[in-house]
Amino acid sequence: AIAQAVLAPMQGTAWAGRRVLITAGPTYEDLDPVRYLGNRSSGRMGYAVAAAAAAQGAEVTLVSGPVTLATPPGVRRIDVRSAEAMHAAVLDALPGQHVFIATAAVADFRPRERQASKIKKQAGSGLALDLVQNPDILADVAARQPRPFVVGFAAETDDVERYARDKLVRKKLDMIAANRVGTDDCGFDSDRNALAVLWHDGGAQVDMADKATVARRLLELILARLPDGA
Amino acid sequence: AIAQAVLAPMQGTAWAGRRVLITAGPTYEDLDPVRYLGNRSSGRMGYAVAAAAAAQGAEVTLVSGPVTLATPPGVRRIDVRSAEAMHAAVLDALPGQHVFIATAAVADFRPRERQASKIKKQAGSGLALDLVQNPDILADVAARQPRPFVVGFAAETDDVERYARDKLVRKKLDMIAANRVGTDDCGFDSDRNALAVLWHDGGAQVDMADKATVARRLLELILARLPDGA
Repeated sequence: AIAQAVLAPMQGTAWAGRRVLITAGPTYEDLDPVRYLGNRSSGRMGYAVAAAAAAQGAEVTLVSGPVTLATPPGVRRIDVRSAEAMHAAVLDALPGQHVFIATAAVADFRPRERQASKIKKQAGSGLALDLVQNPDILADVAARQPRPFVVGFAAETDDVERYARDKLVRKKLDMIAANRVGTDDCGFDSDRNALAVLWHDGGAQVDMADKATVARRLLELILARLPDGA
Repeated sequence: AIAQAVLAPMQGTAWAGRRVLITAGPTYEDLDPVRYLGNRSSGRMGYAVAAAAAAQGAEVTLVSGPVTLATPPGVRRIDVRSAEAMHAAVLDALPGQHVFIATAAVADFRPRERQASKIKKQAGSGLALDLVQNPDILADVAARQPRPFVVGFAAETDDVERYARDKLVRKKLDMIAANRVGTDDCGFDSDRNALAVLWHDGGAQVDMADKATVARRLLELILARLPDGA
């Protein structure tokens, strides 16, 4: 009875009949079988959004990079490692989705070549690593016709809102949720977060709270802006 | 009573009075507050060795890279992130140690500079990452006088024993434990492992088993080769 009383406010049917595609976690770009280029991301924010959307009746597909989190109840999860694999999984799952929420910290760059065997170091020498850009998942989803309502995330260390506003416009997103990373009490390694949520003609602040609460507040902001019939 | 019967064979006093310093897990080399260069390592093999040594009476210090493992009972754990931090923690903890077991997958290279702010990508361009070599923890410990009994690990994808024998001689180790990585059933992401253990005038094979069993067998091989009084 206590568990039900606590859970009750999170459950609902506000998202019933809506299909939501979410990316979460980091991507890892392998240099060789041992070494990789990674992003710091626990995946917790994306998993919290997936859990909250499913609890409110949405049909949720979660494309996840390498994390150590349990799959939220009722969520269909697809595991990937690299940005290219995430890009392919997202485009594959995209048809029929009403909303796309990209919380993953996707690597911008990957090594030009992945070595099949472990790279051996040479005594005394350095190494120049040749990186190429990864596909842009957000921009590619936003360019599709028909397209879902597209929500991006921006994790920035400086000028958070300026970069986020620029990304909203440049990648033709419908909404962007920006948070500052690199501080102690907020962002990837924390259970708490705060967001500045921006859309083309407005914005809202989601105050610092546990990520489950922040996820529900973000979903409310999205739901209020979905076009009729979506 | 059942738990005691199962645990009994693992407990013992064979290592009582001996101090053992162990490294475990990966190191992460930060490019900026979000991106890092990582090694694939769960830390499980090193944590199993630490747990087994402590269960047999050793005084164990565990210098650990970023992992999601619980500290084994009775083990003193020091958390680090980068190879340079691991190098400093190991040299700091070294005086008085009888045995040094280096299971960590230490990054050979780090970015020449760590950026305080997130690196922004330029449209259409790649990135050349300038890497420099990290300090060699194993070789630096082996060069100390007096020095502990030094055990290295070699995770290789090819020619495992040849590379391991070469590393044993080149870094002036007392023993090296080699395992093949990049296969499905063995190595960093697995609960099981098999080792080829080499020393200067001999060697032994530790057959595929759970990592706790492999750890105990490795400790037996080390104990049999410790100099009197160590």
